[in-house]
Amino acid sequence: MTESALTPERILRATEDVLRRYGPAKATVVDVARTLGVSHGSVYRHFSSKAALREAVTERWLDRAHTSLAGIAADAGPADERLHRWLRTLFEAKQHKALDDPELFATYTTLIGQTSEVVERHLETLVEQLTAIIADGVAQGIFAADDPATAARAFFQATSRFHDPCHAAQWSGPRIEEDLEAVWTLLRNGLATR
Amino acid sequence: MTESALTPERILRATEDVLRRYGPAKATVVDVARTLGVSHGSVYRHFSSKAALREAVTERWLDRAHTSLAGIAADAGPADERLHRWLRTLFEAKQHKALDDPELFATYTTLIGQTSEVVERHLETLVEQLTAIIADGVAQGIFAADDPATAARAFFQATSRFHDPCHAAQWSGPRIEEDLEAVWTLLRNGLATR
Repeated sequence: MTESALTPERILRATEDVLRRYGPAKATVVDVARTLGVSHGSVYRHFSSKAALREAVTERWLDRAHTSLAGIAADAGPADERLHRWLRTLFEAKQHKALDDPELFATYTTLIGQTSEVVERHLETLVEQLTAIIADGVAQGIFAADDPATAARAFFQATSRFHDPCHAAQWSGPRIEEDLEAVWTLLRNGLATR
Repeated sequence: MTESALTPERILRATEDVLRRYGPAKATVVDVARTLGVSHGSVYRHFSSKAALREAVTERWLDRAHTSLAGIAADAGPADERLHRWLRTLFEAKQHKALDDPELFATYTTLIGQTSEVVERHLETLVEQLTAIIADGVAQGIFAADDPATAARAFFQATSRFHDPCHAAQWSGPRIEEDLEAVWTLLRNGLATR
């Protein structure tokens, strides 16, 4: 590949390939450069360190399939329907990632443990989306919440079982759908105006 | 130790010592017997296999500090206060186990992965206690739940962050108390009659 054709996007895609092939413990920047047919100096011109490259690739992984969540948060419909859809969309995205390619999921779970700032930022974004939906629900008279941000954080934590990677082994269980709906019902009632 | 003085309780205590000293990968029945000054045949007269011994020691660990939970479930007071107390008692017991002796906690987390039937039974017992409290709450006119068992399972899952060992790293965070109370408020509102 010529130097000018080398974009951050191409480097990130090659990094994913390398991570998938060698695993997070062995994958190096030299492997990424070799895959692209460039020098490792060329890679460093886009990402200043191996850590920076791993952070960027983790962020890309976390945000993938989550763009639709931002759309649901920005929608204008009834907040309870949007909150339900947001939760289901998040769960289904996580479930697909974990079950479709368990090896890559394990790789990213390792990376996530090493890039806590990226993860923090990602989680904050999700809670901000929830805050927007709950605030809309309060404005619509559907939800009661003194502080939508606190309610959003509680809602996110109360649904950990359906999005935190430490629960991934449970996402293929026979009752997982039923469980998700039961938790949703309890939380929706908890937010609803009386 | 003489053969007649050898009780299951003594064997379990010795097994805990051995697990703490050698870790779950290396601890053997021979180590347990040596600690007690008996033959490994004597140990096998009480526990038929290494697996049976590990299950018994895991069960003991899971049930420790949880006897007070059964008491709260069997109490007669207002169900919302008991449910709150049950959750706080469970969280504090787990938090102590995880923070007071992280090495032993890690050992048991490994054992728990190997003794799924014991864990299943333990979790069922906890959900049964919650079912009893929620059913009392319905009888008292405090809670509304079509099916207390379903509501109990949802309540237990929605509080996973505060009792599932996969979240143990978060139990020493500065906001954990505030988070527990926010989730509790959301769930209590979700159960309350309207």
